[in-house]
Amino acid sequence: MENLGVRPHDGSAYETDPRKVWRTFASHYYLFAGTPSRTWYDHVLGEVFGITKLLSADTADEIYDIIDAALATDEFKPRALLDKFQIDLIATTEGALNDLRHHKAMVGSGYEHRVITTFRPDDCCDASKPEFASNLEKLAELTGCDTTNWQGYLEALRQRRAYFRDVGRATATDHGHPSAQTADLSEKECQALLKTCLSGKASEAEAELFRAQMLTEMAGMSVEDGMVMQIHPGSYRNHNTKLYERFGPDKGADIPLQINYTEALQPLLAKHGNNPDLNIILFTLDESNYARELATLAGHYPCLTLGPPWWFHDAPQGMMRFRDQVTETAGFYNTAGFNDDTRAFLSIPARHDVARRMDCVYLSRLVCEHKISLDEAKQLSVDLTYNLARKAYKLPLEAKVV
Amino acid sequence: MENLGVRPHDGSAYETDPRKVWRTFASHYYLFAGTPSRTWYDHVLGEVFGITKLLSADTADEIYDIIDAALATDEFKPRALLDKFQIDLIATTEGALNDLRHHKAMVGSGYEHRVITTFRPDDCCDASKPEFASNLEKLAELTGCDTTNWQGYLEALRQRRAYFRDVGRATATDHGHPSAQTADLSEKECQALLKTCLSGKASEAEAELFRAQMLTEMAGMSVEDGMVMQIHPGSYRNHNTKLYERFGPDKGADIPLQINYTEALQPLLAKHGNNPDLNIILFTLDESNYARELATLAGHYPCLTLGPPWWFHDAPQGMMRFRDQVTETAGFYNTAGFNDDTRAFLSIPARHDVARRMDCVYLSRLVCEHKISLDEAKQLSVDLTYNLARKAYKLPLEAKVV
Amino acid sequence: MENLGVRPHDGSAYETDPRKVWRTFASHYYLFAGTPSRTWYDHVLGEVFGITKLLSADTADEIYDIIDAALATDEFKPRALLDKFQIDLIATTEGALNDLRHHKAMVGSGYEHRVITTFRPDDCCDASKPEFASNLEKLAELTGCDTTNWQGYLEALRQRRAYFRDVGRATATDHGHPSAQTADLSEKECQALLKTCLSGKASEAEAELFRAQMLTEMAGMSVEDGMVMQIHPGSYRNHNTKLYERFGPDKGADIPLQINYTEALQPLLAKHGNNPDLNIILFTLDESNYARELATLAGHYPCLTLGPPWWFHDAPQGMMRFRDQVTETAGFYNTAGFNDDTRAFLSIPARHDVARRMDCVYLSRLVCEHKISLDEAKQLSVDLTYNLARKAYKLPLEAKVV
Repeated sequence: MENLGVRPHDGSAYETDPRKVWRTFASHYYLFAGTPSRTWYDHVLGEVFGITKLLSADTADEIYDIIDAALATDEFKPRALLDKFQIDLIATTEGALNDLRHHKAMVGSGYEHRVITTFRPDDCCDASKPEFASNLEKLAELTGCDTTNWQGYLEALRQRRAYFRDVGRATATDHGHPSAQTADLSEKECQALLKTCLSGKASEAEAELFRAQMLTEMAGMSVEDGMVMQIHPGSYRNHNTKLYERFGPDKGADIPLQINYTEALQPLLAKHGNNPDLNIILFTLDESNYARELATLAGHYPCLTLGPPWWFHDAPQGMMRFRDQVTETAGFYNTAGFNDDTRAFLSIPARHDVARRMDCVYLSRLVCEHKISLDEAKQLSVDLTYNLARKAYKLPLEAKVV
Repeated sequence: MENLGVRPHDGSAYETDPRKVWRTFASHYYLFAGTPSRTWYDHVLGEVFGITKLLSADTADEIYDIIDAALATDEFKPRALLDKFQIDLIATTEGALNDLRHHKAMVGSGYEHRVITTFRPDDCCDASKPEFASNLEKLAELTGCDTTNWQGYLEALRQRRAYFRDVGRATATDHGHPSAQTADLSEKECQALLKTCLSGKASEAEAELFRAQMLTEMAGMSVEDGMVMQIHPGSYRNHNTKLYERFGPDKGADIPLQINYTEALQPLLAKHGNNPDLNIILFTLDESNYARELATLAGHYPCLTLGPPWWFHDAPQGMMRFRDQVTETAGFYNTAGFNDDTRAFLSIPARHDVARRMDCVYLSRLVCEHKISLDEAKQLSVDLTYNLARKAYKLPLEAKVV
Repeated sequence: MENLGVRPHDGSAYETDPRKVWRTFASHYYLFAGTPSRTWYDHVLGEVFGITKLLSADTADEIYDIIDAALATDEFKPRALLDKFQIDLIATTEGALNDLRHHKAMVGSGYEHRVITTFRPDDCCDASKPEFASNLEKLAELTGCDTTNWQGYLEALRQRRAYFRDVGRATATDHGHPSAQTADLSEKECQALLKTCLSGKASEAEAELFRAQMLTEMAGMSVEDGMVMQIHPGSYRNHNTKLYERFGPDKGADIPLQINYTEALQPLLAKHGNNPDLNIILFTLDESNYARELATLAGHYPCLTLGPPWWFHDAPQGMMRFRDQVTETAGFYNTAGFNDDTRAFLSIPARHDVARRMDCVYLSRLVCEHKISLDEAKQLSVDLTYNLARKAYKLPLEAKVV
């Protein structure tokens, strides 16, 4: 729902006055009917700000004033909200070159164990990015490793993973690739491919092969250092060419692609898939894979866990399709419980509320159909909400009991 | 449901006596249980002809006689039915070479603004058709343009679009391609490709590339002349070889294919996708694209609107799958409301009745779940039924209010 | 759900003491919540063994003892269970070289017409199998045909089909291929391809083409001899490399693939698809094909029937997705009724019970929505349970009436 006129796709100037942007948004609010954005927004306005009127052109200014006043109070400072929302733990995501200064600054605040980082090395693993070669130079500077050498490059990444664990308390890595392709090349092939990628002359196929090899390398390092590996594949980034040319990457024009997992993950799984120390959480934007590939893979390989419905599918019916298509083959205990990747801090309670309600709808159906007992449903409701996420991400939290 | 024995796939002679064909149909009517054909037929027999008995071998002759008598009355003449069914507007579809004589003949009848045409230039844009070269010769004759020249060919199509608007009151074009592939070639490449296609020696890949380029050209012309562009991709036409060899093209053996939109539409969208004057309505036979590609594309690009469930999916559960998989990402207002492409005139009320009921089922669920208010649902029910179709197709009709 | 720790993926030794294996299973039983395995197991324990307690670590030994005692009684011998379960007919599956000794041994027992075989010639049709050439030598020995000659090879298979009909009372063949690809090559091409395959040097593409050609040949033989042809495509066999290397093929690591039917089946259907003597039952592991390709193909070609939800989809919600996505286009009478391919004899009643319940849920919904009458639903419930399977497989059974 980006075609609201708030962001000009046509290249005209942005409106920057916040009240005017808000009025435009409010007068288009009816367009969100039936979407999770509407549900989250209603929840934020009602539960976080105590507003009881529906947002519209008529109520825009009144609601703007209430929000504006609230945001100026101490109650709405980030740490106060972290407490109010009862968020035990939140994870940010940083690139491999990040110095984690904000995580460092939190030490001693009493909040540092509730705000951890995640190692997301796409900047140093995706050779299709224009800045790949310069990033590897920076990586060399940071680590003292020769990143033009395959082993030196891997060692540098190993060091950064350790830094993220030590300084940012990271328990997981994250990988956002166009596909889930993995590879298992010889060291000689890896060295040659790295050279090609550093030359800036890698073809699309070579960049894809490099990313594929890097997923397998990252899995190998996870076996060594115990970090949980998340794979978020399947988005065609920067699909809107004019938007990209004017504003640069990551401005919202990301459209899902049809992808596969069965063939794509095979090289990685052939190498590491039976290792009891490996934990990979798989996400998808291509729901056709839920029943066909993801549930069956997670049902077979102990190292694989399914992440919750992601991005466009992080919505009530999207959650029902996930449980409906995944549970009969993979059960509940091969899923990671709920988490989401919102940047909208105020909507976190709404999102978890939606997930808990939908899971309980699903569980109550199983109870009514005599497939599970009420006691089992109670335990599952707590596990899906808390314990499975805690376990899947190896979080330093205590298990919740019914 | 074509395997009813009415049409002989084995090459034996057609039964031509209508009463005998009807009896065969009636005695197989039970086979339609659970299909929309059954629902539509029951509706036509009950609501249009006032028949209260179920069609079967036993009732075949009695029902035949009632229908036969009714069809001979003035009440059942096309314009009388247009009034009785309260059809404000119906659009036919004609090839680019059509002289629109029937639309001309209607002028002065008082019905000409309720029966408009649609420009469907596949005969002149799809070089895989055996008659492509001869069609371009006819196009040259009609327009006085040199259709062996790329610019002359485009100019000829521009003229035909104008003719369809002027004579047939067309507001839209329609494109039925095997895929949604688009392209953005240089003029030199276009000229060379046209030459190859006219030679009759184009490979399958070249014919596909030509169609792909023509979708982008048609979008460019829509920007110029304001016609709404419909894309109906994804059907493997004439799948039954023996049927095709005996009876020729378009005899019903059209089977959907797996297709994609994200990559296929990118060249067209890179060129025209941010133009506020462009309106494209996308249809699909591949439901796996609803949530993955279509809802996300329509949610991002203001020029894109999603057409209703098409062909095999124009059915109650097909409609629920559409709303269920599309709404959370694209909302209701990026969809085109209901329309269908039936050739069965008497079933039009049934089809719209089904669509309205299913949309209301969906809306009432949202109301019960406190996701939208009852007032919003009322407005949406009118918008989905009438206003969105009116707007999406730029129809010369007045908006309906609640 | 194979990650229960019962089977060691890591290469450690198998636990072989049955009671210990059972205890491990029982203590992990809660992991099955929400899966059909749980439903089947609950049904077996409750309905077949009369156990009323839920299986868990606490009840493991008690339940083990009950089962152990029961299995030693005459009541639990296979033929007694066949009677108790009221199984009119069960079909095994044997490779083309099998001598059917167990089927022979049954002659005179009174059970031989209730236990028939199925001709599954993958061992002699899939040239990617290491033993392909030696299997064709054995086939030559068995039949006296020259299986290095294309016509001799086909004649040998024709003889084995006859043997399976005569000795094993087979009415059907079964083909488990990675894809549904078919081909229609010239005899010269076939002879050359056979030679390549026998040399052991066939590429993956050549092995795929050979399998593709063999599906078309098998369809041709079905036209001649009347055997019903089943196609079970779309599984990536032996996906877990380490498991395969240690334990060999067919140990459970089979993961579904994305496949297509529309293009894949076209060569076969172009040759035999209009033949009234041909009957093909199609299965899938790729549900995205239900509405898109399978329902439309079965709706068009009289020779095609859709098999019930298979393998991972043989589960309550899997069955609802099948009916929901298939019925509106193909109706009920283009489906084969219920059958499944379990090797767990005791779970057969549970599986049929699930299928009957889910079909009745679906039918009752149609009745409540006034789409079919209650009388029609009654007839359909019997047809879906019994008559359609009987007809689809040409079984020597009498039709059931309401």
